[in-house]
Amino acid sequence: MTSPIRKRTHQDIAAHRIPASQALSVERAPIYGLLDNIRSMYNVGSIFRTSDGALLKKLFLCGYTPSPPRKEIHKTSLGAAETVPWEYCKDPLDAIQQARSQGASICVLEQTDQSVPYHSIRPSAFPVCLVVGNELTGVSPAVIRAADSAIEIPMFGSKQSLNVAVAYGIALFELVRIWDQR
Amino acid sequence: MTSPIRKRTHQDIAAHRIPASQALSVERAPIYGLLDNIRSMYNVGSIFRTSDGALLKKLFLCGYTPSPPRKEIHKTSLGAAETVPWEYCKDPLDAIQQARSQGASICVLEQTDQSVPYHSIRPSAFPVCLVVGNELTGVSPAVIRAADSAIEIPMFGSKQSLNVAVAYGIALFELVRIWDQR
Repeated sequence: MTSPIRKRTHQDIAAHRIPASQALSVERAPIYGLLDNIRSMYNVGSIFRTSDGALLKKLFLCGYTPSPPRKEIHKTSLGAAETVPWEYCKDPLDAIQQARSQGASICVLEQTDQSVPYHSIRPSAFPVCLVVGNELTGVSPAVIRAADSAIEIPMFGSKQSLNVAVAYGIALFELVRIWDQR
Repeated sequence: MTSPIRKRTHQDIAAHRIPASQALSVERAPIYGLLDNIRSMYNVGSIFRTSDGALLKKLFLCGYTPSPPRKEIHKTSLGAAETVPWEYCKDPLDAIQQARSQGASICVLEQTDQSVPYHSIRPSAFPVCLVVGNELTGVSPAVIRAADSAIEIPMFGSKQSLNVAVAYGIALFELVRIWDQR
């Protein structure tokens, strides 16, 4: 007979996390994020929280994407803007150039004529910069043209897409898994 | 030289979706969802939208989880409460019993003493019912005790967890991938 499953305590979970004071000095995954005209502060906050969980190297906030400090971002990020390196670049092409200078290939999460499933990225594509775009219009055409590759999350139902913070989480954690299992 | 990447049009994307009028009669993935005391209507709406994308078999809303019709759920779900089969069960153990009667094993997404990585579920575990819990307190102890297995998403940063709708998306789409590639 197996013993019943028990939740771990907050203390036990916290003991296995990186202290916030060390978050900006640890070795991070070779993955960058780029937010191209995200409108909602709640989505930005959620994306910060997810980026902390993935130990993302750096998050670029571009165009009219709101940036910290903002009360709404702080609330949904649980303060992750203090533990994830980030930079605001008005022009997303400047952020792309900066990511490329660090060796990253540019991968847009978008439904394009060349998109492959999000789980088919190869470890050779790393470092990689994952780009997500506006809640209604997606990644802008200029950024798509500048990208090296495109991935998409297969949609099996009636709706055309997922919430951007959810889609970012699915793609980012798959990248983490691919990198971890290389 | 490769040609530039181009976004697909809404018309093209829509042409490959299941018409909403047929959404409730198509063959769906052998995956159930169970929301145990989710507080936020925005999270419930986002989870409906994600469940539509995964062609989830049925979503159980339990405890004080708000259920449709609610304006906030409709807005964040983009109307997916009309394309995803769902049922409100006050007692989550009633929903678990119903999922089990359909052959499902019960898998909680929670940090427990027996949790395995979310990507290590085997196709033999299907049909499966994925359980997520309250934004602050997680899955309730009684539901954890009733579960067959527990999965968790590895957290590499300083925060203890992800937003519940993001975590649900990551786990659900991984289940879809595992089932698709069986």
